[in-house]
Amino acid sequence: MTSAALDTVTNHSQSGDPSLPGGLHETSVEFRDRLFAAGLLHPTGVDGIYGRSATYEGIVEAVRDEVSSLGGGRFEAVHFPPVLARPVFDRTGYLRSFPDLMGSVHIFQGDDKNHAELVKRYETGGDWGGILAPADVVLCSAACHAVYPICTGRLPPGGRRLEVLGHCFRHEPSPDPARMQSFRMHELVYVGEPESALAHRDAGLADGVRLLSELGLDMNTEVANDPFFGRLGAILVDAQLEEAAKIEAVTPISSDQKPTAIMSSNYARDYFGIPFAIETADGAVAHSSCVAFGLDRITLALLHTHGLAVERWPEEVRIRMSLSTPSPI
Amino acid sequence: MTSAALDTVTNHSQSGDPSLPGGLHETSVEFRDRLFAAGLLHPTGVDGIYGRSATYEGIVEAVRDEVSSLGGGRFEAVHFPPVLARPVFDRTGYLRSFPDLMGSVHIFQGDDKNHAELVKRYETGGDWGGILAPADVVLCSAACHAVYPICTGRLPPGGRRLEVLGHCFRHEPSPDPARMQSFRMHELVYVGEPESALAHRDAGLADGVRLLSELGLDMNTEVANDPFFGRLGAILVDAQLEEAAKIEAVTPISSDQKPTAIMSSNYARDYFGIPFAIETADGAVAHSSCVAFGLDRITLALLHTHGLAVERWPEEVRIRMSLSTPSPI
Repeated sequence: MTSAALDTVTNHSQSGDPSLPGGLHETSVEFRDRLFAAGLLHPTGVDGIYGRSATYEGIVEAVRDEVSSLGGGRFEAVHFPPVLARPVFDRTGYLRSFPDLMGSVHIFQGDDKNHAELVKRYETGGDWGGILAPADVVLCSAACHAVYPICTGRLPPGGRRLEVLGHCFRHEPSPDPARMQSFRMHELVYVGEPESALAHRDAGLADGVRLLSELGLDMNTEVANDPFFGRLGAILVDAQLEEAAKIEAVTPISSDQKPTAIMSSNYARDYFGIPFAIETADGAVAHSSCVAFGLDRITLALLHTHGLAVERWPEEVRIRMSLSTPSPI
Repeated sequence: MTSAALDTVTNHSQSGDPSLPGGLHETSVEFRDRLFAAGLLHPTGVDGIYGRSATYEGIVEAVRDEVSSLGGGRFEAVHFPPVLARPVFDRTGYLRSFPDLMGSVHIFQGDDKNHAELVKRYETGGDWGGILAPADVVLCSAACHAVYPICTGRLPPGGRRLEVLGHCFRHEPSPDPARMQSFRMHELVYVGEPESALAHRDAGLADGVRLLSELGLDMNTEVANDPFFGRLGAILVDAQLEEAAKIEAVTPISSDQKPTAIMSSNYARDYFGIPFAIETADGAVAHSSCVAFGLDRITLALLHTHGLAVERWPEEVRIRMSLSTPSPI
């Protein structure tokens, strides 16, 4: 798609039709209400947890296929459940860095008597959480976390390239539809030599921004940081920004939010190589990088930019994404 | 597919090749080890939580498409995250009936000082769970639970038909790969008149068993019960069996397990209609039924029956499921 064609796509005409793009002057809550009214999202009573229509899922799957194509067949696809084995979670250091975002899974292991007490406390507002025990799993917070254990040991020459798509959870309730608590992340991960990890980070960023621009999104990039927790977190934020280890690709979705990150490119150095005991072919600690696409945010950005009526999206985008027929489920 | 063709499919020849079917004399653990060795599943260190290959996911998606086709376009597809809004969970009565299977999500809301205490207890084996607070969500235990709130209110004449596919969690760790803690369930749900709910239950069972037989699986049906908890649960089990409210379609997967349920057909009477305030067009309490397909179990049954090398599956099955090309991700 040429730059001129891109202008045509992004400067979509405005009108009073609610299925057309609301443009830049719509707040995040207004956008969410419009998504509800159009039946693309369904409210559940909890901010950031939404049902999604077949049309919405069709866009998610089309974006997924675009991201897979970026990998050019060089990435081995692995899929993981929405819960992560706790021993893996422990090695990611997540509890130290992002405790406020974590979703820890807890289970009941008692007998009839304990059960009666659990139900009583649950229904009368007592402290029932203490009756439960931590499960062997936590909600997955980043899709790539599950792949590092697969790489433990000596890597082949050139390292490994893995593709992973998973449901992630982050406890940050918000009425902004672009800040879901449960969302899909699709990542292209490299594990191996430091210079190849950096090259993957940079090439993946360029490829991803080009892809998203070709889909008609108005993209910018910026050095970014992860939301590390607390006082120690502030120091980690500064270090991350100074190293420019994380670069986000952002696009406007709502007028009351700054442009939203819909993908990021991250150089993790040996942050995962050390705890997961991953070695390069030469026996050095492996470095890693990952290029992460927020499938739900990209879908929302496309709906914001091109309008809620997919059949009226620019023809070149619909054809490219094979959106002529609705997804079955 | 004729009955004779079906015989050909199920009586697949045996050999020493580990990619071919192991037949009926393989234990569940042996089957799991063979799935690991073939790279179809990846261990995570936790029983019932597995990574899955692109080939495995390709089968899951093909089964999903087959189930969608059963609906004949009459079912509105809705997708939900792997976590369920807690107020919805509360109305399903799950905590009373299946507390031992529940995965409750808990979060951290403290400050730096609380965080230091959390990390200390977590890393030294102290009681850290008590520092967390229950989240607004729980892990989804049945895909259909999320759809009932969408139906609250007066239904149109004839009721509503909804199709839902979601990740479910049940805390029942087992080395049997067919008993995953995190798995996909695809359901066709009817909400409306009692007689239509019964008709949906019966037609869905027949259609489902025919579909699964056509895919080459050796199917049987049996009256079944949900695993209600405790002493009260035993009474509920008896009542459910007496009413024949739940019928499971089972197939052999491992020699040390009785045939495994890979789909079920359930008449819920007004069990969801009452708490979710769903009314028929005439203002009566709506009844509901759901036909549930365990996508992971069906995938495992197909791998057990036809062998781990999909390219050597019976041609009619491969063609029907469009398994000639591997799934991207």
